[in-house]
Amino acid sequence: MSVTAPEGFVAGAAACGLKASGTADLSLVATADGRPVPAAATFTTNKASAAPVNVSRRHLQATSGRAAAVVLNSGNANAATGAAGDEHAERMCTLVAEGLGCQTTEVLVCSTGLIGILLKIDKVAAGIPVLVQSRAAGAEAGQAAANAIMTTDTRSKQVVVPGRGFTVGGMAKGAAMLAPNMATMLAVLTTDAEAEPAVLRRALQDAVSRSFNQMTVDGCTSTNDTVMVLASGRAAPAPGGRATELELTDALWEACADLAGQMAADAEGATKVVRVKVAGAADHVQAAVGARKIAQSQLVKCSFYGQDPYWGRVVSELGSAGIAFELDRVRITYGGITVCRGGVEAGDPAQADALRKVMAGDTVEVVAHLGLGSGEASMITCDLGHGYIDENMGTS
Amino acid sequence: MSVTAPEGFVAGAAACGLKASGTADLSLVATADGRPVPAAATFTTNKASAAPVNVSRRHLQATSGRAAAVVLNSGNANAATGAAGDEHAERMCTLVAEGLGCQTTEVLVCSTGLIGILLKIDKVAAGIPVLVQSRAAGAEAGQAAANAIMTTDTRSKQVVVPGRGFTVGGMAKGAAMLAPNMATMLAVLTTDAEAEPAVLRRALQDAVSRSFNQMTVDGCTSTNDTVMVLASGRAAPAPGGRATELELTDALWEACADLAGQMAADAEGATKVVRVKVAGAADHVQAAVGARKIAQSQLVKCSFYGQDPYWGRVVSELGSAGIAFELDRVRITYGGITVCRGGVEAGDPAQADALRKVMAGDTVEVVAHLGLGSGEASMITCDLGHGYIDENMGTS
Repeated sequence: MSVTAPEGFVAGAAACGLKASGTADLSLVATADGRPVPAAATFTTNKASAAPVNVSRRHLQATSGRAAAVVLNSGNANAATGAAGDEHAERMCTLVAEGLGCQTTEVLVCSTGLIGILLKIDKVAAGIPVLVQSRAAGAEAGQAAANAIMTTDTRSKQVVVPGRGFTVGGMAKGAAMLAPNMATMLAVLTTDAEAEPAVLRRALQDAVSRSFNQMTVDGCTSTNDTVMVLASGRAAPAPGGRATELELTDALWEACADLAGQMAADAEGATKVVRVKVAGAADHVQAAVGARKIAQSQLVKCSFYGQDPYWGRVVSELGSAGIAFELDRVRITYGGITVCRGGVEAGDPAQADALRKVMAGDTVEVVAHLGLGSGEASMITCDLGHGYIDENMGTS
Repeated sequence: MSVTAPEGFVAGAAACGLKASGTADLSLVATADGRPVPAAATFTTNKASAAPVNVSRRHLQATSGRAAAVVLNSGNANAATGAAGDEHAERMCTLVAEGLGCQTTEVLVCSTGLIGILLKIDKVAAGIPVLVQSRAAGAEAGQAAANAIMTTDTRSKQVVVPGRGFTVGGMAKGAAMLAPNMATMLAVLTTDAEAEPAVLRRALQDAVSRSFNQMTVDGCTSTNDTVMVLASGRAAPAPGGRATELELTDALWEACADLAGQMAADAEGATKVVRVKVAGAADHVQAAVGARKIAQSQLVKCSFYGQDPYWGRVVSELGSAGIAFELDRVRITYGGITVCRGGVEAGDPAQADALRKVMAGDTVEVVAHLGLGSGEASMITCDLGHGYIDENMGTS
């Protein structure tokens, strides 16, 4: 169960021939009755945003934050495709709207795949009626929808989070850490909580900023990144009344963080997950800048691939991050073992074996204490090895 | 001939045992008479700057921009080494000063190698008298000094640029594109032009900003990067009088650009040099930001490794560079062949063979025309492939 876990949602999938493998490449999440409900989304900040991003943004504006469905395709990003790309994304919405009996602007759209190639819209148009027809309630339909958005993911990513009297469900595909040439991370969340569009928007933005936005592979911001949520308001009345904004935010955050963790764990080109924390920074913003600089460093990530606890690279990234930094106050730990203290080597020979074990793990936690203030921030990343190169050196 | 080409300079080299190979690891460039002359330097902006950077900066301040010598060691960066590191760098200068008969503050110092490991100062101290003794005029001495600063460089990097009545010589080691775990690019330039310290500083900054600073491998700013110049003023009087600041700047720029090109061509972990140009940006600063974003993109660099003309990644980087950008105005060429026009695919099937040939070349030129203004900027980078991973996954 994922997007179909909350009351009032159905899902579906179909294969229209965009994927060479012939597996499902169209996915649908819709309200059970085809009527619009409060909806919100966060989109890529990339100015080369893809047609589906532009169309979805326009639709949410036109409806003041309401939607009845999200249609998604894998196998083509419909990005850098000009006016034709826009028409294709609009057409996908129109065809779904016709099937559901709602307005075109009440349908949102996401795409993932290669950039710069026109969508085979005839195939998509032929597939959408089949897709709409396939929609159903229940776990099986949710699973099928989650499968259909996979690209090089080796596992589907789904989540269900119970709130006080409501449920959040979600599915995602994680190109971000898997195969960035596929350009995209997409997530669709559903909830049966009751929430006005403005509340839903705030809650989603907060949840995304503390989950997906704290994950990086290569510092590349895709043209298609999208996280969407639809709120049916169909949960049975709970003791204590309607869920508060804080409760909703927390449940959305938990769902997003869980999906982000699933992406990290499925990182094809990588051999391990690296959790980077910067503490003791002048403030939280500076901590976040420092954590991101470390997490995006090619050199740091190569060290993790080689299981080499070379903290000198961490220090070097912090020193060039543009944040307050005093080398002689810095302490760095790898898996809790102090490797640098006061800005110099602190390696305890007695801990060499323990450190080797830390570096060989599937997940390594690096903490850099700057000793300047109380700012803290974390990032999730992965190592950089031959797998990333193999995954990204060609598109064919 | 390199640093010894201009009048009034000597050079030397010695092996003190820092390099496991036993080859020369100490290098010296000095004035022929051991007396200080106008000097200038540009240092890394990294706040975790290495001890030799801090010491050299202090010395140049103390002397108001004069120096008699530069001593360099390879095999250890003397970075993140605390107060002991500072003492070691000072001691290197004192020992050279004693040998030359000048003040400690009139000696500058550079180091390159691993971060976070104390220098074996006893070995260095024993080697410096031998180093000072070895100094001599002429090409052979210049070559020996250039060899002694190599780390994983496969070739020494030297340059001589004739100016109107003066000469600029230089040597460099290029970790930047070769083996960034060695952390450093160093360059020492000499000239027999006459120049006040302030003029020399301006000229060097300008030359470096248009050469070394337009080169990137991985966006990592080392703790040790240093470019220095000493001006002996010993050139014979030229017809038309003393060299102007512009003439000096141009010659320094030519020397720096030549050395940067030699580094790119010797990039061990890479299979090709990529020259990125952004034109038609709103202004030059925005063009530079865009060019740097493309040149530092892991995904773009992987594409070049795979000889894949995937311009979608270039568009995506430009869109997320934070500069003015309108996708439908963008035109991109690879080796002069237009692959994207008006923000969409422009691939001419008749040029497929020519494009394949471009992508297979040792050097590929990418130009992105933004169609917004007259801002232009260039960057030199290399591809990202298995060699980079192998080079950087371990330090032992």
